[in-house]
Amino acid sequence: MSLQDAGMPVTDLGIQRGYGIFDFLRVSGNIPLYLDDHLDRFFQSAGFMRLPVKLSRSELSSVIGRLIRENNLPVSGIRMLLTGGESADGYQIHEPNLAVVQQVIPAPGEQWLNKGSQLVSYPFQRQLPHVKTTDYLMAIWLQPWLKENQADDVLYYQEGIVTECPRANIFMVTDDHKLVTPRRNMLKGVTRKQIMGLAGACDLDVEERDIHLSEMSGAKEVFITSSTKRIIPVSRLDDHIFPAALDSSISHRLWAALRAHEMTYIETRS
Amino acid sequence: MSLQDAGMPVTDLGIQRGYGIFDFLRVSGNIPLYLDDHLDRFFQSAGFMRLPVKLSRSELSSVIGRLIRENNLPVSGIRMLLTGGESADGYQIHEPNLAVVQQVIPAPGEQWLNKGSQLVSYPFQRQLPHVKTTDYLMAIWLQPWLKENQADDVLYYQEGIVTECPRANIFMVTDDHKLVTPRRNMLKGVTRKQIMGLAGACDLDVEERDIHLSEMSGAKEVFITSSTKRIIPVSRLDDHIFPAALDSSISHRLWAALRAHEMTYIETRS
Repeated sequence: MSLQDAGMPVTDLGIQRGYGIFDFLRVSGNIPLYLDDHLDRFFQSAGFMRLPVKLSRSELSSVIGRLIRENNLPVSGIRMLLTGGESADGYQIHEPNLAVVQQVIPAPGEQWLNKGSQLVSYPFQRQLPHVKTTDYLMAIWLQPWLKENQADDVLYYQEGIVTECPRANIFMVTDDHKLVTPRRNMLKGVTRKQIMGLAGACDLDVEERDIHLSEMSGAKEVFITSSTKRIIPVSRLDDHIFPAALDSSISHRLWAALRAHEMTYIETRS
Repeated sequence: MSLQDAGMPVTDLGIQRGYGIFDFLRVSGNIPLYLDDHLDRFFQSAGFMRLPVKLSRSELSSVIGRLIRENNLPVSGIRMLLTGGESADGYQIHEPNLAVVQQVIPAPGEQWLNKGSQLVSYPFQRQLPHVKTTDYLMAIWLQPWLKENQADDVLYYQEGIVTECPRANIFMVTDDHKLVTPRRNMLKGVTRKQIMGLAGACDLDVEERDIHLSEMSGAKEVFITSSTKRIIPVSRLDDHIFPAALDSSISHRLWAALRAHEMTYIETRS
């Protein structure tokens, strides 16, 4: 059915109690990118939240394949959504509802890569942060505040330690040529994993460790990563302005390496 | 329409991003109890979350009146639910969806008053705690852990300070005859307000202040309050067993005072 017609009962725990998980993957050339990683995480999220998935992994994979064939939206996104389901007492998980939807999204062009993203930091820790829950309450609530601050996104930190943006992971490149990224209290993105794998090709050692917010302004480069945007250099964090990311920057080189990796992924599966 | 048929689009921010607020009130003798307090809080929650309500206060009140007349469920509950609505980019609030539903719920009998409730404490702070959001992620997630601990409900605390149960406020009666209840980082319940107003009739001074978790075991009585249950004495908190609440207890006397107050409320509006 069309996305506009897809509905869920108001008694679903996903609506009444905000109890749900999801995953979102990008489709390019009608190939679902890094499908295995997204399915891994989807089933991990479901398991941790004690939500049984009524489809097996291969059945869910087939549904995604069928959506792609029937919709023929070569550049798009697919969302798998699993909610607590209808509940007699509005509190106990009974039978989860699963929805798989596909929609057109823009390809991650070089626009953001050149423009960069302006971040503001905010002290907040997501609950169950290693699970991809539907809890974006704070992220949505902060939208007007972001606008007031002429920012594109928020960077969460807690007790001085940086964790993540609501829909992206963060990296910094240090003077001694290390690629550093937070190691805990956040969601480990699929693109984050790819970037860590590609860092070696840019002669970077990767370090997963706690990063203090005050460290970030001393970084050579800072960038965020996500499945829909690949890499976006951070041009501003609070009051600190980073130099524009040049073509020779790590951000640009990793962006190109990631795009090449995607092309290979697509070609070997077409 | 019937509750089973009421639905929301999967693209609603309430489902996709857990962005929603609600309020729930009890109906007794076809009278919506403390309607003004619930409407106050509903509009406050909506305002804080920047969700415009498409009905005015008097229109919403009329809808509730019509539901009560048409459904004729004298002992029931009414839920007003307001979600972020359908969103083009899945992130920006566009036009909120409002649903008002009525369903049968049991009257708050003396069963729980006599049985009491067993609580276990858990270190957690709800986000935007003074708003009645649909975020019950942690509460639902903890359900199996509650069962393992033979507990009925969880008591949240943060940095040693007690805040609330997911759907109830907490009170303790001290040796020097004070009724003490948390003052911050939690939702201020409608029943909590009534209880504070009725405390004088039981010769109790009320104190709103931080309560350390370790203080609770020294209390003469501990009880929780909610719109659906009125008052439930706490019979156990973690390893500490409280003496059974007798008919002469503060819990029982306040329960009776609250029921009498409700009766007057109903009689003056019938």
